[in-house]
Amino acid sequence: MKEIRVAIVGAAGWMGQAHTMGYRIQPVVFGTEPAVPVLQTVVDVDEGVARDLASRYEARQSGTDWQAAIADPDVDLVDICLPNNMHYEVALAAIEAGKHVYCEKPLTMTAAESKTLADAADARGVVTMIGHNFPRNPAHGIARGFIQRGEIGRVVHFRASMHVDFLADPDIPFMWRCDREEAGTGAVGDIASHIFSLVQYLIGDIESLVADMEIVTTSRPVLEGFNYGAQQKVADDAPRRDVTTDDIVTLLCRFAGGGMGTIDVSRVATGQKHAQNYELYGTKGALRFNYDHVNRIQVYRVGDPPSEQGFKSIDASPEHGRYGAFYPVANFGLGYNEYKAIEIRELMEAVASGKPAWPTFRDGWKIMQIVDACVESSRTRRWVDVLDF
Amino acid sequence: MKEIRVAIVGAAGWMGQAHTMGYRIQPVVFGTEPAVPVLQTVVDVDEGVARDLASRYEARQSGTDWQAAIADPDVDLVDICLPNNMHYEVALAAIEAGKHVYCEKPLTMTAAESKTLADAADARGVVTMIGHNFPRNPAHGIARGFIQRGEIGRVVHFRASMHVDFLADPDIPFMWRCDREEAGTGAVGDIASHIFSLVQYLIGDIESLVADMEIVTTSRPVLEGFNYGAQQKVADDAPRRDVTTDDIVTLLCRFAGGGMGTIDVSRVATGQKHAQNYELYGTKGALRFNYDHVNRIQVYRVGDPPSEQGFKSIDASPEHGRYGAFYPVANFGLGYNEYKAIEIRELMEAVASGKPAWPTFRDGWKIMQIVDACVESSRTRRWVDVLDF
Amino acid sequence: MKEIRVAIVGAAGWMGQAHTMGYRIQPVVFGTEPAVPVLQTVVDVDEGVARDLASRYEARQSGTDWQAAIADPDVDLVDICLPNNMHYEVALAAIEAGKHVYCEKPLTMTAAESKTLADAADARGVVTMIGHNFPRNPAHGIARGFIQRGEIGRVVHFRASMHVDFLADPDIPFMWRCDREEAGTGAVGDIASHIFSLVQYLIGDIESLVADMEIVTTSRPVLEGFNYGAQQKVADDAPRRDVTTDDIVTLLCRFAGGGMGTIDVSRVATGQKHAQNYELYGTKGALRFNYDHVNRIQVYRVGDPPSEQGFKSIDASPEHGRYGAFYPVANFGLGYNEYKAIEIRELMEAVASGKPAWPTFRDGWKIMQIVDACVESSRTRRWVDVLDF
Amino acid sequence: MKEIRVAIVGAAGWMGQAHTMGYRIQPVVFGTEPAVPVLQTVVDVDEGVARDLASRYEARQSGTDWQAAIADPDVDLVDICLPNNMHYEVALAAIEAGKHVYCEKPLTMTAAESKTLADAADARGVVTMIGHNFPRNPAHGIARGFIQRGEIGRVVHFRASMHVDFLADPDIPFMWRCDREEAGTGAVGDIASHIFSLVQYLIGDIESLVADMEIVTTSRPVLEGFNYGAQQKVADDAPRRDVTTDDIVTLLCRFAGGGMGTIDVSRVATGQKHAQNYELYGTKGALRFNYDHVNRIQVYRVGDPPSEQGFKSIDASPEHGRYGAFYPVANFGLGYNEYKAIEIRELMEAVASGKPAWPTFRDGWKIMQIVDACVESSRTRRWVDVLDF
Repeated sequence: MKEIRVAIVGAAGWMGQAHTMGYRIQPVVFGTEPAVPVLQTVVDVDEGVARDLASRYEARQSGTDWQAAIADPDVDLVDICLPNNMHYEVALAAIEAGKHVYCEKPLTMTAAESKTLADAADARGVVTMIGHNFPRNPAHGIARGFIQRGEIGRVVHFRASMHVDFLADPDIPFMWRCDREEAGTGAVGDIASHIFSLVQYLIGDIESLVADMEIVTTSRPVLEGFNYGAQQKVADDAPRRDVTTDDIVTLLCRFAGGGMGTIDVSRVATGQKHAQNYELYGTKGALRFNYDHVNRIQVYRVGDPPSEQGFKSIDASPEHGRYGAFYPVANFGLGYNEYKAIEIRELMEAVASGKPAWPTFRDGWKIMQIVDACVESSRTRRWVDVLDF
Repeated sequence: MKEIRVAIVGAAGWMGQAHTMGYRIQPVVFGTEPAVPVLQTVVDVDEGVARDLASRYEARQSGTDWQAAIADPDVDLVDICLPNNMHYEVALAAIEAGKHVYCEKPLTMTAAESKTLADAADARGVVTMIGHNFPRNPAHGIARGFIQRGEIGRVVHFRASMHVDFLADPDIPFMWRCDREEAGTGAVGDIASHIFSLVQYLIGDIESLVADMEIVTTSRPVLEGFNYGAQQKVADDAPRRDVTTDDIVTLLCRFAGGGMGTIDVSRVATGQKHAQNYELYGTKGALRFNYDHVNRIQVYRVGDPPSEQGFKSIDASPEHGRYGAFYPVANFGLGYNEYKAIEIRELMEAVASGKPAWPTFRDGWKIMQIVDACVESSRTRRWVDVLDF
Repeated sequence: MKEIRVAIVGAAGWMGQAHTMGYRIQPVVFGTEPAVPVLQTVVDVDEGVARDLASRYEARQSGTDWQAAIADPDVDLVDICLPNNMHYEVALAAIEAGKHVYCEKPLTMTAAESKTLADAADARGVVTMIGHNFPRNPAHGIARGFIQRGEIGRVVHFRASMHVDFLADPDIPFMWRCDREEAGTGAVGDIASHIFSLVQYLIGDIESLVADMEIVTTSRPVLEGFNYGAQQKVADDAPRRDVTTDDIVTLLCRFAGGGMGTIDVSRVATGQKHAQNYELYGTKGALRFNYDHVNRIQVYRVGDPPSEQGFKSIDASPEHGRYGAFYPVANFGLGYNEYKAIEIRELMEAVASGKPAWPTFRDGWKIMQIVDACVESSRTRRWVDVLDF
Repeated sequence: MKEIRVAIVGAAGWMGQAHTMGYRIQPVVFGTEPAVPVLQTVVDVDEGVARDLASRYEARQSGTDWQAAIADPDVDLVDICLPNNMHYEVALAAIEAGKHVYCEKPLTMTAAESKTLADAADARGVVTMIGHNFPRNPAHGIARGFIQRGEIGRVVHFRASMHVDFLADPDIPFMWRCDREEAGTGAVGDIASHIFSLVQYLIGDIESLVADMEIVTTSRPVLEGFNYGAQQKVADDAPRRDVTTDDIVTLLCRFAGGGMGTIDVSRVATGQKHAQNYELYGTKGALRFNYDHVNRIQVYRVGDPPSEQGFKSIDASPEHGRYGAFYPVANFGLGYNEYKAIEIRELMEAVASGKPAWPTFRDGWKIMQIVDACVESSRTRRWVDVLDF
């Protein structure tokens, strides 16, 4: 049984937990071939936190020094769950040490940095992957199948949105995602990048776009030790700090392969705990997805008889992608954590075979080009070409 | 019982039938005060058609001469159901003859024409109304009430779409809506104007926008005597004619009162027989509407307890607007024709009282400014100010 | 243009208005052939009310004497919108006077009375129809088509429900529907009969059943002049009167053609303004309907490829039944009033041709047999055969 | 770190995998206190299979002898994933050996057997739990909270259904679930028991019922080595075997605490891959659940203002139950496997504390009483009292 030994750097947060769950259930769900992941070490700046995590996550070791973890000959794969502004440095070091790299999104602070990473990984021959797990939902695989088999025809119009409200309340304290220095961007890098990964998975490249971005809540109270979800009470006289990242991004685009797009994304969409939707209209058919029916794709075919036209709802089932590894019948409930597990399965196969699997850092570079294009278009109030970034 | 005597000009189409149904059920649904409409005459270019319509619609007369109808002292209100490029001439003549005017949308071919009509109507002191009946749905009245009472707070983001597929099939024959000379524009004037009327009803004015428009099917076969819905077969060697009006319009905008908008509209949205949606995110709450639940508004309030947050679905009922005139209980089914009947009720009250009712021709002018702004923005690939049109 | 002259007896309520709207739009929607209805007279016990209604409804006359209306040689069709316990006497008199009869549901107080009416109508050769308008929804016509063409196979299980809450509040005053002497039964006759009419339209006869009925609110305050919908306040010390009709009926059944059924109906279903659903599972396919998507039927076919199985949502469109008489595109919104108009169209064709149209009084008798069977089964706590009633 | 050492007996199937996933993620999701489960051994009749499972599931041992596993002093908890007819013998032996027992549903072949087990467990002082994991969905916890706080009032009517189609195709081969000797019952024990567990969780006991059961497909082809999900082709001349368990069960009931119920369940519900729904109508409010929105409860309150009445959709979030252990925001996707993990968390806490947690074997006995009552009522065609079983 071949082992792939993993070091999680920045293991303490939500992603650290999600990745660990994904590693632990790999052999149970997918079997022991071609390889199984083992948690070699978990790294956190706080030594006690790292030690506790090692216990909870059954890691062989823990540590506080990411450079040591990268240098460790017993580490095959570096898994980066750090804040955005640390991705570049750690990923580059890992690549240069010859380690495979798995990095949370967005890949870097700029498209240029992402390109450097992609080039370095190719030069060094290591496997890379970005944690865009939403497209792993087998329902999107159904959609992609229809598109690739030509059953939808040429793409005419694609609409997509992702709306959440974790920053809708203007009294939510300042967090690192609000700071351009640490996060790079706001909604566009953090959330719209999910949609951009779906676009890449389903349709391909965006050629040009015009975007509008807005900071809706321009300052937020500062709360020491604030931890999202902890519901701490902010004092009325708490100092406030300027928010420097976008709360909303809306954009129109044209796809490289033809067709128009409309995408809007918000982290201040009052009431939307987690909404994600798309509609794709083609010359021969149409597809719809709504996260409220997360397991389902709706498909319409032009060729149906006039009296029987309509959208058919297809639930992901053992017939579709890796769904059957989890459940023998449809509609039993896959979610974010299962998408992570599927992503890790793809990563394990890539590392074991040495063959890249989507989305590599080069794919991530293309997504970062779109992010940078949005920022520039919003600043200049004009259409921009994505390839210019 | 005061009568308001109506002449329908261009009575032969769908709108002629819809308006007539609206007139005929007025006293049954709303009673005989302050006035009841009577169909004085129906006008069509074809004398036989006009005579048959007079019989079906129980009109007192019929005719082929719209100028005669306008001049008739027994006509109080001129109802214009003609193709777009005739609206301006007929409406202006009717206003100048001192008649009240009810006109289907879009009001004219350009914003400038609309302004001329609005000015003329004000000068002459006649009542005008445009047939934007969708906002008459009592569900939108529920939404408007929440907004006007301040329960949604400041508008942060408004997304809306209207998608239909009556031109999705590239073999549907050329119709007048495909011709810029006759229709002015395509999806933007014919369909997006519905959304613009909802924006005006719910939020107010659009300040600036950037739009993208596309003719997806660039030519269509010509079929003599083609009548939409008739399913005639087009010969493979039928001559084709260039389509000169837009099939899709997508736009980003900023509202005069603040907040961002995303609107997209298509008449080639494969599979969408009639889709209409909006979401409005505010600082204190949110609203959602989906034509699939046409009678329903979903509302979210920030102030709900953390464990009980969610969208509440409110069905239009006798508590809301004019719903109760139709049914004593909620959710029994109002549709397009009932919205027309409510619109006509508003019109009857306006004519009887001499007080204008939304949307007047001046309101329609503002909608045409948005239409013209979309055309210009799409041509120049830049943001434009709506007030420049 | 052939006229069918109608007398509405009991014209003052909701049904009087709904029927009148249906009559008035007949020629507009369906044309003037083979006949058009005209309102000859409206009858109400109160002379002033009757006169006002004649004005609002544009009836030629009004009156207070239903026997005179029946005797009037200028009346062709008697339309009965009276309380349940008057249906039998008036309908029998009208039949015996050789008039066609259109009667609201439930047809009579007992199945035996209904049989008498059906026999009398056959003997006299008059056309009869009961106002079960819900099945006129073209969506149900789509369902029926699938069943009749054998595409669903043999019926295995049919589930249906209708839930409303107009009596959920125990402080709603006593109304005639609460009184067994006047209404016969409660939910079973008033509401479940709608489901029974759908069963008859889609599947056929019920062979045997076991039912459970309950009076949930056993007494209600008495309010003089109470009018449903009027929101009058009841004094705390108002006298109370015993409710003697069922609030809920639930039942299991077996169909004459095979297959099992589950039906439940309530008028105290808190929060359900108007819910109506069914699912039909067959050996070759399945159908689903939900009044929340009132225009839509979902169909599933066993023969679809494994990876493309799912329910397809078909919206009623001009391809389906009489939908196209109202709108040239799908999903524009038909509701209860339009179903009435379609029902009246069927009635006009039946009267003009002399050929019966579903549901005749004989069809209504079968529905009353089911109602009586429910009452008996609930009383005796055992399965009963419907043909015994 | 306290370990609870588990032996899975019958580890090879779907449940073996689901339980193992639940064990493996316990410390990651819920932490290491008060105890963590470890897989001591996996037992299967086939030695090779057992050995392979031990590898995939990282069990310390494997074996083929369930009696040896029960006798093993290193086993604290026996987890029974065997076919129904083996539950009783193995569970009883485990209890008598002083082991805690976790058993898949239905608990036994008859209510009498379940009572024996419950009594034995009480006498021996071991913790027992049945694998009814659906109620672990935090959405049901929201519903239960409303009920227990009295916000729904007295239960008036509860409707529930569970519809699947894994046996809808009459050519699906005979499987053990079709054989009364091995499975006891069909849909009623296998599927309706899920609904009965929800009833117990939300409402309480069923007092009396009348049920109708049917074997829709009376014989099935025999296919050696058939494994559900494997899509093997059955030869046309394959021998057929009689199905002796029910495909559908429908029932009406009365609850011990008052109120009526309607429950129907099918394993031949063509097209329904996995449908589960309920509606609960009370005197003060109502609740709705639909597995298509698996994370959501809809609640209605009588006290809302007349113009704002409606069902509010509450998504399970970190505010609700154990949801927050998986995700920091709502609506990210819990499913069957996560419900199992929550169930196992409850079990771990119960074993660690020695305090029972719902549903114990005594709770399971009550569910088996309902199953037995359905069988008897369907046979005798009469209402039966559940306490008689």
